[in-house]
Amino acid sequence: MSHDDSERPATGDLFQYANAVGERAYQAAKGLALASRFAKDEWLRRCAERLRQSTEAVLRANARDLELAQHYGMNAAAIDRLRLTPARLESLATAVEKIALLDDPIGESFEKSVRPNGLAIHRVRVPLGVVFFIYESRPNVTIDAAAICVKSGNAVILRGGKEAFHSNRALYELLRDALLDAGLPADAVQLLETTDRAAVGHFLAMSDKIAVTIPRGGKSLIERVAREAKMPVIKHYDGICHVYVDKSADLEMARDIIVNSKCQRPGVCNAAECLLVHADIAAQFLPLAAAALREHRVELRGCPRTLELISGCRLATPEDYRTEYLDLILSVRVVDSLEQAMEHIATNGSHHTDAIVTTDSEAARRFVSVVDSAAVVVNASTRFNDGGELGLGAEIGISTDKFHARGPCGLRELTSYKYVVEGSGQVRS
Amino acid sequence: MSHDDSERPATGDLFQYANAVGERAYQAAKGLALASRFAKDEWLRRCAERLRQSTEAVLRANARDLELAQHYGMNAAAIDRLRLTPARLESLATAVEKIALLDDPIGESFEKSVRPNGLAIHRVRVPLGVVFFIYESRPNVTIDAAAICVKSGNAVILRGGKEAFHSNRALYELLRDALLDAGLPADAVQLLETTDRAAVGHFLAMSDKIAVTIPRGGKSLIERVAREAKMPVIKHYDGICHVYVDKSADLEMARDIIVNSKCQRPGVCNAAECLLVHADIAAQFLPLAAAALREHRVELRGCPRTLELISGCRLATPEDYRTEYLDLILSVRVVDSLEQAMEHIATNGSHHTDAIVTTDSEAARRFVSVVDSAAVVVNASTRFNDGGELGLGAEIGISTDKFHARGPCGLRELTSYKYVVEGSGQVRS
Repeated sequence: MSHDDSERPATGDLFQYANAVGERAYQAAKGLALASRFAKDEWLRRCAERLRQSTEAVLRANARDLELAQHYGMNAAAIDRLRLTPARLESLATAVEKIALLDDPIGESFEKSVRPNGLAIHRVRVPLGVVFFIYESRPNVTIDAAAICVKSGNAVILRGGKEAFHSNRALYELLRDALLDAGLPADAVQLLETTDRAAVGHFLAMSDKIAVTIPRGGKSLIERVAREAKMPVIKHYDGICHVYVDKSADLEMARDIIVNSKCQRPGVCNAAECLLVHADIAAQFLPLAAAALREHRVELRGCPRTLELISGCRLATPEDYRTEYLDLILSVRVVDSLEQAMEHIATNGSHHTDAIVTTDSEAARRFVSVVDSAAVVVNASTRFNDGGELGLGAEIGISTDKFHARGPCGLRELTSYKYVVEGSGQVRS
Repeated sequence: MSHDDSERPATGDLFQYANAVGERAYQAAKGLALASRFAKDEWLRRCAERLRQSTEAVLRANARDLELAQHYGMNAAAIDRLRLTPARLESLATAVEKIALLDDPIGESFEKSVRPNGLAIHRVRVPLGVVFFIYESRPNVTIDAAAICVKSGNAVILRGGKEAFHSNRALYELLRDALLDAGLPADAVQLLETTDRAAVGHFLAMSDKIAVTIPRGGKSLIERVAREAKMPVIKHYDGICHVYVDKSADLEMARDIIVNSKCQRPGVCNAAECLLVHADIAAQFLPLAAAALREHRVELRGCPRTLELISGCRLATPEDYRTEYLDLILSVRVVDSLEQAMEHIATNGSHHTDAIVTTDSEAARRFVSVVDSAAVVVNASTRFNDGGELGLGAEIGISTDKFHARGPCGLRELTSYKYVVEGSGQVRS
């Protein structure tokens, strides 16, 4: 808390401060909505340039955060996410340049039609307005989120974790300078000068200024935001992802897919947490899979039938099947049918990402239509449920909601539309 | 209140009742999500058939509501909306048959792509789940809303106004019988057996079962729902709609458009409430428009410059320009430029429907891109912002939100999607 307080703005009046930030963002959003693609891409290119030029200043600020990290009791993994390096800054600059190459979603025209009375109708994509983005202590996200919001025509209010305060401020300064370079409203990107949690409450009440709040971080943060927010929230809850190996599966393919789904990056939401295996091939497949998974030091927790087929496997509790381990642990269950596998997923899963491995196209078709997840995957790793991998170019998060946006949220998912109706004097009779 | 209480279910335990309704809807939605287009359309055809067969029973129930209407202090217009007639029932049956002819949005595949690694990606449209629909005392809406929800694969919980209680129950019975005819889950449509307002609160808290709440009715109802709901809400606020007559307008076309926008049905949200006229043509246009509007008994309230050009016009107050009259009253203002007209709309409008009448394509282009409304209209009546007129086939409301759905909400606007990823063993490196 003492660190929090030291960063609180001098005014002391958080409510007034929050309102001023919200109003500036709202006004900036109006200008940004009409900005040309050229100006937005120019901003992105200037950001990349300034990232490369300011490497030393950013690393100095980051060093200060790293010094303070132990005061916050951060563990090694969290400190690693906080750390910036010349290589990481270069890859950020490259990512920003790639966003400049993506199509501008704003102004896209779709669902065109001409009505019998001659009215020409279409929808035109427009920005949502102001995004309030709350995120963990990963300074690279400051750049990513600002780039995605501004490219999609939205102003953004960034509220980063306190542990990244100095890094974020250094990055924010270059984002802002680049806005001026490109002739865009300087308040299109704002970084909160306070990490006081009470400030968040003021923003969550500002439904007249803020179009959407996107919280990234732990479940308790997302739950708090969903409870308090008076505007829509794009939520990102856990991923309890499954790989189901059907009786007709290519077993080597299935082995490679479960190993990749579990081990390629175990700490993320689209990593697999549970392996379901059809009883007909369990005796053949489980020893094969267990050997490969153990090479990656994966701990297995299985159902009684699993334990009969592989040794050194702990008995899974019902709780195991509902757990997002985010670690090298995998629950395993032998099922009697595709239907039982889908029932298991419906009961225990989190509607995030679920995969089937099969050579039976009817089984694949049924799995794809019945399983109610943001991404259903056939014969590939669950790790592909990601904005970059699905071709969105960039993503600001993976929505576990069905409303507005589901799955990875890229540029288009941060937009709305208007109807344009063009006539020649038509009236209704 | 005494009428309310007399309809309360015997159990007395509203919370338990609401939970049971929510759970039944949730289970029904799972079945409905997988229902074939044939079954859903068969249900619609059976509904139409049963509407025609049950005319007498429905009219008897409606007669009971009409008898009670005076107890509720309903005015003539409200009683007219409550009244069913053989002709109105026939037009409802026809409307339902038309919905059966619309494309099924569920299962539609879109945004297909093949990634460089060979993964085939597309999105497939899926239902949202359960819709909680709260509406005014118009029994025809019971049929319309159920038809749109079920055709789009969603279960619906209907909460109609207490004044239409008996009519709604009679209509609900035939909807439910038709569900059984068509082999669909009987709980896909449920009508609340209580009109107790406290029950609404229980449903608004049920975010684990209900995907979206759609309130239709007065502003205070919508505000209450938006404040209390723990799930997304599709809101339908007021329409303060403008017609701007540019200096290059065809004046006779402009006259016909303002007359139609104001008078064709003054009590609805897409009727015009304000006429903006460019100063260069005001002296010519205003007398022409005033004469035509007065033939329709429209009361005019104008700015000082308007008063100089037409007689018998009251001075408009700032409040007039921010009022949704829903009546034969029109505010009028002379503006010096397109920019001033757009500024007036931004300051006073409600982002619903705004029209420009012009022969200048550059003025039209600028109006369309700057004015931030659900529908921007060029050279046509504001009354075209309607699901039927825009080609959606049917609508459940007109959203004044930007999130998820904007403008008229038809079948597609009641859906979400899932990503389908099809591979041949791909893993991430």
